[in-house]
Amino acid sequence: MGKERSEKEKVGGGGGGEHNKRNMFVSCVVMNSCAAELKLVLTALLVLCSIATLFQILPSRFAISASDLRFCISRITTTTTTTTTTTIAPLNSTTTTTTTIAPLNSTTTTIPLTPSPPSAQKDQVADNGVIKRVFNPYGSAAYNFITMGAYRGGHNTFAIIGLASKPLLLYSTPTYQCEWVPESSSASNSTFSTVSYRILPDWGYGRVYTVVVVNCTFSEAVNGENSGGKLFLEASTSGGGDKNLNITDRFEVLNESPGDLNMSLFSSKPKYDYLYCGSPLYGGLSPQRVREWIAYHVRLFGERSHFVIHDAGGVHEEVLEVLKPWLELGYITLQDIKEQERFDGYYHNQFMVVNDCLHRYKFMAKWMFFFDVDEYIYLPPKNTIKSVLDSLSGYTQFTFEQMPMSSKLCLSADYGRYYRKWGIEKLVYRDVKRGTRRDRKYAIQPRNVFATGVHMSQNFAGKTTYKTEGKIKYFHYHGTIAQRREPCRNLLNVTEINFEKVPYVLDTTMRDLAWSVKKFELKMIGPKLQNTRQ
Amino acid sequence: MGKERSEKEKVGGGGGGEHNKRNMFVSCVVMNSCAAELKLVLTALLVLCSIATLFQILPSRFAISASDLRFCISRITTTTTTTTTTTIAPLNSTTTTTTTIAPLNSTTTTIPLTPSPPSAQKDQVADNGVIKRVFNPYGSAAYNFITMGAYRGGHNTFAIIGLASKPLLLYSTPTYQCEWVPESSSASNSTFSTVSYRILPDWGYGRVYTVVVVNCTFSEAVNGENSGGKLFLEASTSGGGDKNLNITDRFEVLNESPGDLNMSLFSSKPKYDYLYCGSPLYGGLSPQRVREWIAYHVRLFGERSHFVIHDAGGVHEEVLEVLKPWLELGYITLQDIKEQERFDGYYHNQFMVVNDCLHRYKFMAKWMFFFDVDEYIYLPPKNTIKSVLDSLSGYTQFTFEQMPMSSKLCLSADYGRYYRKWGIEKLVYRDVKRGTRRDRKYAIQPRNVFATGVHMSQNFAGKTTYKTEGKIKYFHYHGTIAQRREPCRNLLNVTEINFEKVPYVLDTTMRDLAWSVKKFELKMIGPKLQNTRQ
Repeated sequence: MGKERSEKEKVGGGGGGEHNKRNMFVSCVVMNSCAAELKLVLTALLVLCSIATLFQILPSRFAISASDLRFCISRITTTTTTTTTTTIAPLNSTTTTTTTIAPLNSTTTTIPLTPSPPSAQKDQVADNGVIKRVFNPYGSAAYNFITMGAYRGGHNTFAIIGLASKPLLLYSTPTYQCEWVPESSSASNSTFSTVSYRILPDWGYGRVYTVVVVNCTFSEAVNGENSGGKLFLEASTSGGGDKNLNITDRFEVLNESPGDLNMSLFSSKPKYDYLYCGSPLYGGLSPQRVREWIAYHVRLFGERSHFVIHDAGGVHEEVLEVLKPWLELGYITLQDIKEQERFDGYYHNQFMVVNDCLHRYKFMAKWMFFFDVDEYIYLPPKNTIKSVLDSLSGYTQFTFEQMPMSSKLCLSADYGRYYRKWGIEKLVYRDVKRGTRRDRKYAIQPRNVFATGVHMSQNFAGKTTYKTEGKIKYFHYHGTIAQRREPCRNLLNVTEINFEKVPYVLDTTMRDLAWSVKKFELKMIGPKLQNTRQ
Repeated sequence: MGKERSEKEKVGGGGGGEHNKRNMFVSCVVMNSCAAELKLVLTALLVLCSIATLFQILPSRFAISASDLRFCISRITTTTTTTTTTTIAPLNSTTTTTTTIAPLNSTTTTIPLTPSPPSAQKDQVADNGVIKRVFNPYGSAAYNFITMGAYRGGHNTFAIIGLASKPLLLYSTPTYQCEWVPESSSASNSTFSTVSYRILPDWGYGRVYTVVVVNCTFSEAVNGENSGGKLFLEASTSGGGDKNLNITDRFEVLNESPGDLNMSLFSSKPKYDYLYCGSPLYGGLSPQRVREWIAYHVRLFGERSHFVIHDAGGVHEEVLEVLKPWLELGYITLQDIKEQERFDGYYHNQFMVVNDCLHRYKFMAKWMFFFDVDEYIYLPPKNTIKSVLDSLSGYTQFTFEQMPMSSKLCLSADYGRYYRKWGIEKLVYRDVKRGTRRDRKYAIQPRNVFATGVHMSQNFAGKTTYKTEGKIKYFHYHGTIAQRREPCRNLLNVTEINFEKVPYVLDTTMRDLAWSVKKFELKMIGPKLQNTRQ
């Protein structure tokens, strides 16, 4: 740094001029060897000195003064296979602030830096002896807004999904507005959204950041001529971090190229009947459990279904292996969302992820399901997924109840071969403790939904029902998915038991389905996953 | 802007080199007039071209390219007698982000701006079909650190008092370190503190910001030669707002001019025996109540006492009027801390203010008292402030109990003239409800204290005691200080009463002192405050 800095000074500042002049002068003295050639030498000197002067003038017009640079923060691309430290050093010795960025892990990122202010203001004593104290703020502790996605929701409406600073939303009232800027300047001017509101679907759960869904609606169609344009979000802090300032960050969130827009999408029959939006997967997931889960649900939901899997680090090599056959058949879209781990929100930013999924695939499916990969949807006999959902089509949302299953208790009958059995096959004891509130899971018709959650949506048009008993429920194998060891710990041959103060009953509902799921998997993708490990 | 940029490019980038070469070449052609002088010309050319080359190299190391400049944010001085909006526009047309600052009120402030990043990164689809999602962060929602004061605590130790982002401290572990940079370059190099720790005296109470006291100790004396120097604080986010980045803001917090340091301060007898550190005053305070409070306490604490009053907006014209006589006598220092209202912390940043007072006046007083302006210290008969504190001198801290007084109940005997009586004279009913935990107040010997709170310090060396009954206590007239109306609402002629379900007894302890306080005030400052209004 020291070296770099001194070189900058040579050119940028007044000191640089002195240095250059001295160099020139030395050169000139060496040249002055012969009196007869004096005229030519003088000419050369004149040219030399003119250039030297020119160089002194130009940098001063260049005019990045030390005081400007002090606030000048450049884009830092931190390529950090080794631990690189990038320091922005002050250009002269009166400078008193610096911002240093040291990357914390080995990913490559382009990030904005926050500037430090100039030299600190000083306390002042007024004529009446009162000491006027100053408070000098430095740096930045959190971004104002972080975008995940922005999606068109119709001819004049958009949704932007992202994170915002939690205390900003808790203690201030930041505002959001959209601006549409047409691609060609010959088109009409940019327009602003007339209705812009924010939804906070994870209220109460955020950490440094909390989830925001911004809904922007314009008074008339935007990009109606399909000539392209850009959507900008304007996010204002409304004095959140500094009551004196309303800082508005304006940034592009969506870019529609000319001809790209297909308005018929919003009124067409969706591509899929059923779309699964998964919460972020993370940690050391069991490939075998994931293999069972995906085979079970592709069979359940059928051909007109699709699964959006969000990888927050959980889709390691072996898990990818079991997803691959279904990826290749087009049943799965895998979203790599590991980058969101940079931003400290609730539970791998789960609420942001499901809202991104909702809006990204809003017009792609009639129904969307939100549940986890240790949960299995179950339809009682004589029901099909179609018959159940047709009977609920008058509702925008329905929720369904949980059947909690033990993650340890297995059957003595499986002794010696339980390790070859599937999870739903060998874990057959159901927790029947009364008086416990059990989480429910839910499905929605996404075209009527504005934002969603993990256990239900609270922002939709239309009706909701929880009366789904006898139609649909889910079996929950809590504690099995992130475990690579054999789950069976206790082999029992009873139909009822109290285990660790919890009453369980034998329930072979899922066990009885396992054979048909295995058969389905074999038919669909062959035997390639037969040797998958727990 | 466009012009500036093109001139910058001439010098800064490769284009500048081209331009310079062409100039040189023209010069060289003109010079080449005579074959006999060829050798000399060639020499001149060589020198010229060497210099030209040198200039090409230097600017390219300087390397402020246009794309860097896009993120360059300069200091914005918003002078806002009218509602000014300052916009930082992008430097070229591919830039898609802007930050606008609209001041929220009519004060004049110099503030740092937060930069927006360049154009957004886009999601990418990998060869295996996985969608790699990007998350684009924008702007800033909170400062990393805000300084209020930095004070030397001895030959090698300092305390820096300020605010830091609350979620940063709640969910991350930001680190703080000090650096001492000697004034003269001939002195030794800059040194770093060997022990740096943070105290969070308001833990659990912050909002956007929380209070931090940084204690920095160096392995040996700094500025021992009294040749001047500067203390810098380095505040690192440790990935708080972005897990990939450890942003360190380095800024000057203290500047000691040559000859300024008086090391004897730390071992001398303090200037005052008793110093009052007040919490921030705000709102529509009653001038008459403040008049009574200051006269009472100057009399109580005596000549070797001093009062530090913090004005967070409460010292309006009429309140200043009643403080002025005592200001002129040197009993009061008035700190205007209105500026801290910009930063949303707990209760006018009360915890920061008392800690600033502690460290600012640490070596100025033997004892420091922390209580409010609706509270009156009381010493039972036969005690003096000296006798009490001498008896407690073995303790770094002691706390004392509260006598809660009604803010409404007065004596029938005062009928017709209560409006002329002082608050402590007419409010004579004491709340004697049992089983209620009552706040205590406290005093400390500041030289042994590292940080403090509102009801006690938890960071000190030495002993603390709460066994002060019979020696010192305080009467609390809650709800009287911010009221401009006459407090007496009910006139009673009983010695006990249950009022609004609370038992009260007649207690004329303070009433009996009122006459001597009035006499003292008259003696000290004359009758100038006689017509003060409630």
